[in-house]
Amino acid sequence: MNTPFETRIRNCQRRLERADVALLVCFPSPNLTYLTGFDETPSERHLLLFVPRTGAPVVVAPTMYDQQLTALPLEDPPLECRLWADDDNPVELVDSVLEELLSRSDRDGQSTADETTEILLDDRLWETFSQDLRACVPNATFGLASTVLAELRLRKDDPELDALRRAGAIADRVSLEIRSRGEDLIGVSEAQLASEIERLLATHGGGEPAFSTIVASGPNGARPHHHSSDRTIESGDPIVLDFGAFVGVDLGGATGRYPGDQTRTMVVGEPPAEYERVHETVTNAQQAAIDAIEPGVTAGSIDRAARSVIEDAGYGNTFVHRTGHGVGLEVHEPPYIVDGNDRKLEPGMVFSVEPGIYLGGKFGVRIEDLVVVTDDGADRLNDSPRGWATGAELE
Amino acid sequence: MNTPFETRIRNCQRRLERADVALLVCFPSPNLTYLTGFDETPSERHLLLFVPRTGAPVVVAPTMYDQQLTALPLEDPPLECRLWADDDNPVELVDSVLEELLSRSDRDGQSTADETTEILLDDRLWETFSQDLRACVPNATFGLASTVLAELRLRKDDPELDALRRAGAIADRVSLEIRSRGEDLIGVSEAQLASEIERLLATHGGGEPAFSTIVASGPNGARPHHHSSDRTIESGDPIVLDFGAFVGVDLGGATGRYPGDQTRTMVVGEPPAEYERVHETVTNAQQAAIDAIEPGVTAGSIDRAARSVIEDAGYGNTFVHRTGHGVGLEVHEPPYIVDGNDRKLEPGMVFSVEPGIYLGGKFGVRIEDLVVVTDDGADRLNDSPRGWATGAELE
Repeated sequence: MNTPFETRIRNCQRRLERADVALLVCFPSPNLTYLTGFDETPSERHLLLFVPRTGAPVVVAPTMYDQQLTALPLEDPPLECRLWADDDNPVELVDSVLEELLSRSDRDGQSTADETTEILLDDRLWETFSQDLRACVPNATFGLASTVLAELRLRKDDPELDALRRAGAIADRVSLEIRSRGEDLIGVSEAQLASEIERLLATHGGGEPAFSTIVASGPNGARPHHHSSDRTIESGDPIVLDFGAFVGVDLGGATGRYPGDQTRTMVVGEPPAEYERVHETVTNAQQAAIDAIEPGVTAGSIDRAARSVIEDAGYGNTFVHRTGHGVGLEVHEPPYIVDGNDRKLEPGMVFSVEPGIYLGGKFGVRIEDLVVVTDDGADRLNDSPRGWATGAELE
Repeated sequence: MNTPFETRIRNCQRRLERADVALLVCFPSPNLTYLTGFDETPSERHLLLFVPRTGAPVVVAPTMYDQQLTALPLEDPPLECRLWADDDNPVELVDSVLEELLSRSDRDGQSTADETTEILLDDRLWETFSQDLRACVPNATFGLASTVLAELRLRKDDPELDALRRAGAIADRVSLEIRSRGEDLIGVSEAQLASEIERLLATHGGGEPAFSTIVASGPNGARPHHHSSDRTIESGDPIVLDFGAFVGVDLGGATGRYPGDQTRTMVVGEPPAEYERVHETVTNAQQAAIDAIEPGVTAGSIDRAARSVIEDAGYGNTFVHRTGHGVGLEVHEPPYIVDGNDRKLEPGMVFSVEPGIYLGGKFGVRIEDLVVVTDDGADRLNDSPRGWATGAELE
């Protein structure tokens, strides 16, 4: 019985073979975690996984990762570790591994040194490592690892969906708890509230925040990616709250982690003029998008469904971002729910639906839930109230 | 009076001119923050800063960053914003900006389209964007932005040093507080203690954690980069605690943030055999390294000073990492305190000194402080107790 990671590596190798690619190179990133269960932050140290189209993958890593790497659930194929100490030259090691793996690929008779060798590089590989690799194999052509791995990662399996559902439920509970505080939110700074939200996410069983929690009050709400600031929440402020935490899942001996991502916009006190109409428009746009989801329709058509509701209400030019993004090991990954994206939806895809209206200098409203595509529609992974009322008047 | 960012851009352009480089390209990274004060997480969206060697820099960014970008303190030279909406093609925009800036560089008469154009790319630029840029300018040669920017960033100015000192003082306070808990630490899981440390860092005025807090107890301490786990702390466990928080500093209208980074190794109860000797060896190694610091000596010699103390005690093969790393906008940046590094130390450089001994299956000890190079030696930025005792018996 293979571990999920052994299966993923074999699936990846099959696709490399089919695409006549010699080698795929991963860097600490969701691709590396997906293939091996190894979850590490990128750093200035050479840590690279080389997946040839046949045989054992090879990881080049600093000595200090020895124990973590040998503990990974990879036996068939095994993971070969080539470790380097801080006073070794990692580029020489990378060079020798490339030579070895590319000549292994030659011996298969599927390519020769004369032909152009194609190598796929992790989409998030840092330029500094890219330049090292390019210098080692000057005649190769380079593509992106996502051309092979994105297809594999798009459809979530049951343990992945279970983790995403738990992450959604945790975000729901925190959303409810913040909402119930009502007028107690007045006088609290955005940064304090963001830190309180992150504390509550952990209390309810979440791991690390999936991204910097956004608390954007009053006019700050008109900036979709506002950083929580020292601004104090005042009575009558709409407050955009965008947050989520990672939730871990055991996959045969190594852990995957999957994020929550939810946005609600609330008001403490009397909302400003135009607010109710804006909130209702965004709510309707989100519902229209979710109603449009089913297998076989394009990602772009979901964006159109949300956008036309907002356009019809006269706010078209204030909805300045796409309707959503896929969610999995990455908080942003394919499928992107953006106009013109012809990618057809399939059961098991998970993405956000998050239309917004941003009125510069006044306020913003965004409502976001994660959904999973089912056989005949979509299931929401979040279900906390989406209205703007706080305190006792929960809808 | 120029803002710090205007000065930094001009210094950068002077160096581009001197090196005959046409263009420097930054990505959301510490380089971008250093040059503009804009601090954003990398994402799959094209957000690139182009610094030509003369004239106004150009930023290509998603529309949603409009307000944040125009608020940056950059007027002389100004920052030209080229924004793209989610249904635009950002690669076409990048292509037109490259053509415009490279022809601007031609008109200076300092290079011609026939010569090879050199472009420096952010060391952390993601491969996906690198491949886009390379496709736009197929005949250019590519280097790394650090060849120009690292030199500028190495020496910290007074506001930067002030932020680093505050970050160190916050870590000191948290270290003392954890130490004072003594036997209350028994039965707490590593993950719980890590989350408590991050809460305390915020309580004492820190911003976000500078990296995932490491709590490595008992045998887990033998993994230098252990992830805090569900393991429960037992009596007699050495506990490696490695943590720090970012601290912000206002630089003429935009914020820089600088991290703390401190490691202490404590024991609750009776330490295991060999422990006292190991802790004393690491303490002495750290002191020897700090004593060796002065302007003009090499970074490598500081590593040798620490390493020889550990080698003389017979633990040479257990000290599996370099002695330290520079700290600034990045938690790991030059100068790297590693054997063979000929970089000469200069006043104003800040780096960690963190020797360790790791006994597989048993325990590990690491002691880390940040230091700043002074005119005649080094100042520690941390000063909490370095001994292993906890509870009332503080040294």
